[in-house]
Amino acid sequence: MTTLESPGPTIGVVGGGQLGRMLAEAASPLGVDIVVLDPTPDCPAATVSTDQLVADFDDEEAITQLAERVDVLTFEIELADQDVLDRVRAETGVPVHPDPATLRTIHDKLAQKRELQAAGIPVPPFRSVSSVEDIEDALEEYGAPVMLKARTGGYDGRGNVPVESAAEAANALDAVAGPAMVESFVDFEREISVIAAKGYGETRAYPVGENIHEDEILRETVVPARSDDAALERAHEIADGVLEVMDGRGIYGIELFETTGGEIVLNEIAPRPHNSGHWTIEGARTSQFEQHVRAVLGWPLGSTALRCQTVSTNLLADVDQSCPAALAHVERVLESSTANLHWYGKREARPLRKMGHVTVLQADGESRDAQLERARSLREAVTFRATE
Amino acid sequence: MTTLESPGPTIGVVGGGQLGRMLAEAASPLGVDIVVLDPTPDCPAATVSTDQLVADFDDEEAITQLAERVDVLTFEIELADQDVLDRVRAETGVPVHPDPATLRTIHDKLAQKRELQAAGIPVPPFRSVSSVEDIEDALEEYGAPVMLKARTGGYDGRGNVPVESAAEAANALDAVAGPAMVESFVDFEREISVIAAKGYGETRAYPVGENIHEDEILRETVVPARSDDAALERAHEIADGVLEVMDGRGIYGIELFETTGGEIVLNEIAPRPHNSGHWTIEGARTSQFEQHVRAVLGWPLGSTALRCQTVSTNLLADVDQSCPAALAHVERVLESSTANLHWYGKREARPLRKMGHVTVLQADGESRDAQLERARSLREAVTFRATE
Repeated sequence: MTTLESPGPTIGVVGGGQLGRMLAEAASPLGVDIVVLDPTPDCPAATVSTDQLVADFDDEEAITQLAERVDVLTFEIELADQDVLDRVRAETGVPVHPDPATLRTIHDKLAQKRELQAAGIPVPPFRSVSSVEDIEDALEEYGAPVMLKARTGGYDGRGNVPVESAAEAANALDAVAGPAMVESFVDFEREISVIAAKGYGETRAYPVGENIHEDEILRETVVPARSDDAALERAHEIADGVLEVMDGRGIYGIELFETTGGEIVLNEIAPRPHNSGHWTIEGARTSQFEQHVRAVLGWPLGSTALRCQTVSTNLLADVDQSCPAALAHVERVLESSTANLHWYGKREARPLRKMGHVTVLQADGESRDAQLERARSLREAVTFRATE
Repeated sequence: MTTLESPGPTIGVVGGGQLGRMLAEAASPLGVDIVVLDPTPDCPAATVSTDQLVADFDDEEAITQLAERVDVLTFEIELADQDVLDRVRAETGVPVHPDPATLRTIHDKLAQKRELQAAGIPVPPFRSVSSVEDIEDALEEYGAPVMLKARTGGYDGRGNVPVESAAEAANALDAVAGPAMVESFVDFEREISVIAAKGYGETRAYPVGENIHEDEILRETVVPARSDDAALERAHEIADGVLEVMDGRGIYGIELFETTGGEIVLNEIAPRPHNSGHWTIEGARTSQFEQHVRAVLGWPLGSTALRCQTVSTNLLADVDQSCPAALAHVERVLESSTANLHWYGKREARPLRKMGHVTVLQADGESRDAQLERARSLREAVTFRATE
């Protein structure tokens, strides 16, 4: 039996960016309170959370204080420190979901790939890199190009360097500047992702999304993905396998490649609500954020059924240098009967920073291609250029 | 052109109950901040608002402070004081929506009825009451029973006293204990309501809801109402007429009777988001709360299209006396793939207090009758009785 009191359960969240903000938006209807920890005063999640602790993501004393105020800890950034979370959990007895062990595996892309491969999850050929020779060997074995990746700390394509030939290997290794791995370059038809939830004794996966990246940053997600049924089914099978490996409850963003040969292989996993799952707020019966709240609390998971064919598009700051954030012509989105605006409240626009997103629901009988074009034209109608 | 900055616009809300809470939940995705004023520390809206000023609804100094922090003032309770709001607006130059003049009209049920009647809105026969004789005259003219109503301060049926005969008139007048009016009792087929928005140079109305009351407190809303097309159309015509009378932007809850003779007559108006519009959160393209945010800011109004046939049911505290709030068996709602839980976070349960609501979306091909039964059985599955 689940009993809800007032005040309801409180979730402590390490990180208070847009994911924390949308988590707090989803927690409130359920009577669940959110306290975030983030080094930036007035972080995006602050205004809709019960409280913010202003502290670094690895500040053990502050995270201990956070734990003492909440029923369960979670995190919305991979920068959360697994060792600190482990110790805080041991000292305070407050559970942490997903498990810090999962964060440890995911932090290290090489360890992640090894563990998933051992579990039978299809991954691109990869190897550890400690020298230029390792890259050269990979080029020879996998064929050019290969993708050199920082084992830790990369996201949105940061830390990924394509290597076309042995001549580029040394510079690439310098660019990564730390422990590295190399992967066969996947010749993909499309990038897809499965948002999946691991709850208390149950798992649920959302319909597969198709992700369109540019400069390795997500621009749009189209749901359902424009893949055939066999590919969609295979993606869900792989997601099920991934959840078996992952330890601890919560939402996982599972990024996959659909290869030109029709295979599905794993790209990366995020142990948290994922940008490619923002469409669920309007497009699914339960948003990924509400699902994460349910999962970490051990509550029953919600339905992941599609409400509507959906496209989401990111509002990336189209600015040359940091400046106060201002988005002009939002009336273009507000006036659309099938579009929803999400503005994260970040104070500062920086080049290509994720400032918000727009969700576009299917108009009557609209094809996914037409819907995607409409989303793009809405995104281009709003502008980060100087206010007029 | 509408430009959104960070921090975005801030709305000051007099009142921080569940309506304020749901307003804040809806404001956040738009990048809009909410500051509430409410005398109860940790009021329902507090956790999801940027800040709460703890002060009475008519505390002019506090409301002035609130005005100085925000771009526009609104209210989510009719207890807001129209004279105070008028003065604060004049002193600070901060706009108030809806207009305090509207609040003044609506506060006095007699003035409200007179103004609406003058505008051609159909209302039940009514008259002012200053003595027992006035009630006797009404009984004679309209036929028994008649409804004696306090002109000010009543809600959820409080202040309404049915009078069956002249013998009851004196006691009824004592019970109302203040300025009163009397209305012909309307023999209605069903009670319905239109949630309508008055924006900047535009208005929009939601599909008509059917409201089921018990002891004059709303229990369920069924959307669309089970009325015929002519009645639904007439309800919208009346709503349009009401909005013309109302001054200032915002959401209006327009309660109507559908009489046994097939007429539609006005019952009452609430100049704020309304309990019978909670279904819009999941059931409409734009929730009444987001719509109120858009309206008071003068932004384009959102689509009021139905997403799904919807039933909402209130969770009224089923307790004999005040006690800490606890709701058992919420898993019954959480496990349903078509139900959404809303728990307002009120600390104290009091007999019949509105503590939350459940929204039930149509299951495949489900009739409205079956959907209503399902909503009721979910409501009865959760319980305010002692936790087990």
